Amino acid sequence: MRISYVELCQTFESILSQFGFDEEGAKLSATLFAKASLDGVASHGLNRFPTYLKFVQEGHIDPRAKPESLWSNGFFERFDGHFGPGNLNAHFAMEKAIKMAKNFGMGAVALRQTNHWMRAGNYGWQAVEAGCIGICFSNTIPNMPAWGGSQPLLGNNPLVIAVPRKAGPLVLDMAMSQFAYGKMQAYARAGQEMPFEAGFDEAGNLTKDPKTIIDRHLALPIGLWKGAGLSLMLDVLAALLSEGQAAYQVGKRKKETGLSQFFLCFYLPKLGLDFSDEILDGLIDNFSQTEVFDDKEVRYPGEGTLKTRKENLEKGVPVDPEIWQQVLELSKG
Amino acid sequence: MRISYVELCQTFESILSQFGFDEEGAKLSATLFAKASLDGVASHGLNRFPTYLKFVQEGHIDPRAKPESLWSNGFFERFDGHFGPGNLNAHFAMEKAIKMAKNFGMGAVALRQTNHWMRAGNYGWQAVEAGCIGICFSNTIPNMPAWGGSQPLLGNNPLVIAVPRKAGPLVLDMAMSQFAYGKMQAYARAGQEMPFEAGFDEAGNLTKDPKTIIDRHLALPIGLWKGAGLSLMLDVLAALLSEGQAAYQVGKRKKETGLSQFFLCFYLPKLGLDFSDEILDGLIDNFSQTEVFDDKEVRYPGEGTLKTRKENLEKGVPVDPEIWQQVLELSKG
Repeated sequence: MRISYVELCQTFESILSQFGFDEEGAKLSATLFAKASLDGVASHGLNRFPTYLKFVQEGHIDPRAKPESLWSNGFFERFDGHFGPGNLNAHFAMEKAIKMAKNFGMGAVALRQTNHWMRAGNYGWQAVEAGCIGICFSNTIPNMPAWGGSQPLLGNNPLVIAVPRKAGPLVLDMAMSQFAYGKMQAYARAGQEMPFEAGFDEAGNLTKDPKTIIDRHLALPIGLWKGAGLSLMLDVLAALLSEGQAAYQVGKRKKETGLSQFFLCFYLPKLGLDFSDEILDGLIDNFSQTEVFDDKEVRYPGEGTLKTRKENLEKGVPVDPEIWQQVLELSKG
Repeated sequence: MRISYVELCQTFESILSQFGFDEEGAKLSATLFAKASLDGVASHGLNRFPTYLKFVQEGHIDPRAKPESLWSNGFFERFDGHFGPGNLNAHFAMEKAIKMAKNFGMGAVALRQTNHWMRAGNYGWQAVEAGCIGICFSNTIPNMPAWGGSQPLLGNNPLVIAVPRKAGPLVLDMAMSQFAYGKMQAYARAGQEMPFEAGFDEAGNLTKDPKTIIDRHLALPIGLWKGAGLSLMLDVLAALLSEGQAAYQVGKRKKETGLSQFFLCFYLPKLGLDFSDEILDGLIDNFSQTEVFDDKEVRYPGEGTLKTRKENLEKGVPVDPEIWQQVLELSKG
């Protein structure tokens, strides 16, 4: 089933208005949800929308809270998100980082007391559409063990690195767990094993069985001890630079709220650099021409997105009929 | 066999002086090599020293070249390393980033046309010893495939994230490959399999057999497609921000030289932040108290280093007798 992008936006917007969002907030949040589905990331678009509304209803998200500036030197600014909508706060923070980078070549924003930013990649696209290199990461509620640990301790802390390029930007959007819990749930429902090791069983061995992993929240960090270490460091950076909560403190609240995030932008023309795509185009040409194993292809991060977006704009955005129905009913008020 | 840290330093220094290093360069490079071995990273300390000298002899490393500033705005500076010694250039770059961070809260250095920086962690320790958060990464010669690729295309691009803490800093020092080639060679010599999947065989399947992997230079990126993507993005950032070579261009030279690197520092007191260790100590306390699987323990990045350093300062630094003999003979001129 496909729904037009415009209808997705309008439907989300009308519901958000009913849930206490002001006009501007409802419009932007709706767009960010619709963009995630448009780009093929429904898990953090339409499919996540009901949970977002639940967080508003339960008071974890304050739909009208605005970020408050706590400190700035002109190229580094720190904000308190006041438990506002995570996607609006993150969009605001990246916009600030872009503006500072446009002024000074480099700009950074640390954000505390915010909420889940939904689709991480949105903020990477936001940066590249403004002509900036964008890097951002967030902590999360603990959902992976440390290396050797038998309980969830680390967040899977998503990391985005995005680089503008006329022929198609590079946008990496990755969490520190090998697979998202949503993906593992889908495999579990289908009674299938994961294609690669995905977490730990009760004895601490690697397993591909999604149910075993989901039951204990023991998802596998990418690269085993390495991703566990990287996850911890991203958490430390986000918490320290924002003077906000670390993942373990988020875990104590039980609900995933009060997150810490960091946004960093570079604008090459203000760093004395030519803005031609020569280096990047050469690199991507070389990348695309690598030899591959049978039936395989290589893709650079973000390569498929523009194609998916174009197709979904033309044919409509694929939606899960059940979730779409659920959302439509909300829109009737 | 153990050698005193002082003797290591002096021996390295006297050899480097014979190889054309000036007094200051010989002393610092010797210290950086000795520190790597002192901290338990002999692979990029003593054991790497002969290769470093060979690069000097072959003209890939110019022992007296100094970094040249190409552009600066006071908190972002770009340098050409002029193919100087990679460890000296990296130390210089991190020192600049520290100084800018101490002035403005945040400081960045992009470095092009440099050489292998040897032990990456040294520059993380350098930052934390100056009271700064330090982040740095380098590209390398291609030594891992892209996801789906059957030839080395990506560097294993080491990444360092270091955060100061009185009770023991956090220093993450990780390459983007699951295992270092040096480690795989050691397993191959011992006729052993790697403890976890470590690369690809000739059909593109994951394998633990080190010899198969080494033969084709098909080391496994951490987290499969995820580490491959992250490696590419670190390469892109280093090359773009320094206007230097990307990994694929380094690969065309055949020798690992002309690398691109990036260094970023934060100094919290100049970012309006209190410098107490309260957040970090709470986080590490919580980390250390996590439940573990039988016989396992958890360690934060860098946790073992201070202990190893203390022990090796007291008892002497462990050295491979054969390599040490080889180096001693060089020191006789």
